[in-house]
Amino acid sequence: MIDICRAAKEAAAELRVLRTEVKDTALNAMADALETHRERLIEANAVDVEKARAAGVSATLVDRLTLTDSRIAGMVRAIRVITGLPDPVGLGVGRQERPNGLVIEQVREPLGVVAVIYEARPNVTADVAALCLKSGNAAVLRGSSIAYHSNAAIIEVLQEALAGVEGVPDNAVQLIHDVSREAALELLRAKGYIDLLVPRGGPELIRTVEENATVPTVIDGDGNCHTYVDATADREMATAIVVNAKTSRPSVCNAMETLLVHRDLAEEWLPGALDELKGLGVEVRGCERVRAVWPAAVPAEEKDWGTEYLDLILAVKVVDDLDEAITHIGRWGTMNADGIVARDIAVAQRFTRAVSTGSVFVNTSTRYSDGGEFGYGVEIGVSTQKLHSRGPMGLESLTSVKNVVWGNGQVRVL
Amino acid sequence: MIDICRAAKEAAAELRVLRTEVKDTALNAMADALETHRERLIEANAVDVEKARAAGVSATLVDRLTLTDSRIAGMVRAIRVITGLPDPVGLGVGRQERPNGLVIEQVREPLGVVAVIYEARPNVTADVAALCLKSGNAAVLRGSSIAYHSNAAIIEVLQEALAGVEGVPDNAVQLIHDVSREAALELLRAKGYIDLLVPRGGPELIRTVEENATVPTVIDGDGNCHTYVDATADREMATAIVVNAKTSRPSVCNAMETLLVHRDLAEEWLPGALDELKGLGVEVRGCERVRAVWPAAVPAEEKDWGTEYLDLILAVKVVDDLDEAITHIGRWGTMNADGIVARDIAVAQRFTRAVSTGSVFVNTSTRYSDGGEFGYGVEIGVSTQKLHSRGPMGLESLTSVKNVVWGNGQVRVL
Repeated sequence: MIDICRAAKEAAAELRVLRTEVKDTALNAMADALETHRERLIEANAVDVEKARAAGVSATLVDRLTLTDSRIAGMVRAIRVITGLPDPVGLGVGRQERPNGLVIEQVREPLGVVAVIYEARPNVTADVAALCLKSGNAAVLRGSSIAYHSNAAIIEVLQEALAGVEGVPDNAVQLIHDVSREAALELLRAKGYIDLLVPRGGPELIRTVEENATVPTVIDGDGNCHTYVDATADREMATAIVVNAKTSRPSVCNAMETLLVHRDLAEEWLPGALDELKGLGVEVRGCERVRAVWPAAVPAEEKDWGTEYLDLILAVKVVDDLDEAITHIGRWGTMNADGIVARDIAVAQRFTRAVSTGSVFVNTSTRYSDGGEFGYGVEIGVSTQKLHSRGPMGLESLTSVKNVVWGNGQVRVL
Repeated sequence: MIDICRAAKEAAAELRVLRTEVKDTALNAMADALETHRERLIEANAVDVEKARAAGVSATLVDRLTLTDSRIAGMVRAIRVITGLPDPVGLGVGRQERPNGLVIEQVREPLGVVAVIYEARPNVTADVAALCLKSGNAAVLRGSSIAYHSNAAIIEVLQEALAGVEGVPDNAVQLIHDVSREAALELLRAKGYIDLLVPRGGPELIRTVEENATVPTVIDGDGNCHTYVDATADREMATAIVVNAKTSRPSVCNAMETLLVHRDLAEEWLPGALDELKGLGVEVRGCERVRAVWPAAVPAEEKDWGTEYLDLILAVKVVDDLDEAITHIGRWGTMNADGIVARDIAVAQRFTRAVSTGSVFVNTSTRYSDGGEFGYGVEIGVSTQKLHSRGPMGLESLTSVKNVVWGNGQVRVL
């Protein structure tokens, strides 16, 4: 493990000074190679899929694992988008001239070595490789054992492509072939080698990382997402947004888990909206005030407010006002994505300011919390922490801002 | 401890939506109160100073601990500077309109609850209180037991001042009166309450934090600072900068600890510079090539390259070229502050890009790595990590950037 990390650190020293044109050439070569070797990838993937089926893995997981022509096309498309994005390295985010003539620039630079631990979806392998290369970082990838052959084939194809591009260091992108837990723990403790580790996975992975990591991490955590429908909301819009946020893809982290409704809408709007959700197969768990206007609701218990169902289940609560909604989200939310539906500007502005969430949505669905939808091509993860980066993480999240101070001989008296 | 943290979290919810004019009024009241109660502060401080002297504490530490009229004036001045700085909360750092009409704003918001663990200097108490208030954060302060009476008096004065300003919550600024190690450990583990903890202290404190903290931290770590003098350097400027970086205040984290010199300057420039440093009391520890041109140097051992002396001692190494300097800094540096003296633009630019240091100085002294010198008034700490913030941390480092997405009914199809 340390050999892989050391090789990555050496590669990172070269990658951080690589010109954008070289990186873009490399990205194009990566995309071309994935297209060319589509069959090779699908063959390797078939081994994983067969083993997974034989092992009785769930149909959902097998589906996520499976590579098809269209999914490979999606990986290629993501790399092309990333190629077209501006290089964040060297970008200035601030500049000032001090009274003594010093010029202080704040400039983005690569982090160095970025490691990602992820689950069954093989496309993450290509996504992370591309994001890291464009942002001048060396990538260390640790995929799931279930996707081992797929990931190995993707990395092989990408490494072959990179070997043909002058200036790109060997080991710019590496896969950890040892998929044991011990190897993962070693990676978590490779302090001094890893500049950022992003765990993409379930609560168990997150807990392991939080308990064991000595390397800097950004947590891609739970999404207990809320939508608050204010008294001033456009009713039709509110229904459409709530239905979309709950039902368009209930298994993902940006799906709504709790609906908060202003009491003025409890009788007028809520029953109709819940009827529609029920018609789409949603089980509703409501507070007493919800059950008073829509008796079909299952009684909500306290634990419902803290649960990320990732399923067609919705907790619903009637609140007295905006402040109660804000307090509820502050108590139960996971800082991933929360939204409001409201016509009143003051209400919306107060919500966006008072809710301490990474991505706050006004009059639209929390389902838009996504690197692609944010224009980042893909994401390296969705941060649910406050430091460094919040929400979908694209190229900028893979850089840090250094100070570059230009003088002409100034020395400090005190 | 949890009571203090809970109270801070409640205060933070109010502080995050506080208008700038209220915060500035409160800051002015704080500065006025410190001026008014100067004698009360000096009396309380006298108790600490006497106890410290009786306990045989070093003269340097007693000096740091001592409050004088001019030091109180310095605290007041810092608060006035912070009052005059723009409020970072609500500041936009990005905005885009997506093809589907969504507007994505990236907006600074307060972190929430900021905790600082610090050593003997009582001025930190006022500095941190002011920075946190201006940036809309609740402050939890844990000072050294040696400065207990001073800190308690400062906090009392500040809390009295804040109580007179309408809109400022009680508990906006709190001091932890229990200065035991157990209480500090509890603070480190107050996950869910503390949004940022900054430890300001020696290696032992940093190690304790790294080993025990479950709350998010930004490390204010060692400063093993380098200055590289390139072959193209202005010789006179190089001498002045090197002398300043080493001798103007050797005990601080932005003082130079290692001098790297291009071999072309080994015979021509180095001996004269070392003579001058020696004349100012500096002990030189040199590599073989240094000793060849300046035999008075003590032979440097490998551990010298990794030592932060904080004293009038300097490690000196002759390098073949810029790349060797960059590699040396990458291996031994602590990412705090490193500098180059060079006339050649390409050399300077390559150095600023290739060196992975929080603050890089060109043709000036590393001693400028300082919140005051950067225009931040004071600093909450000097970050030596890559994530979230780098170098001197001012108001912006006490905020995080959230995404606010404005729609008009958009829902996501896939």
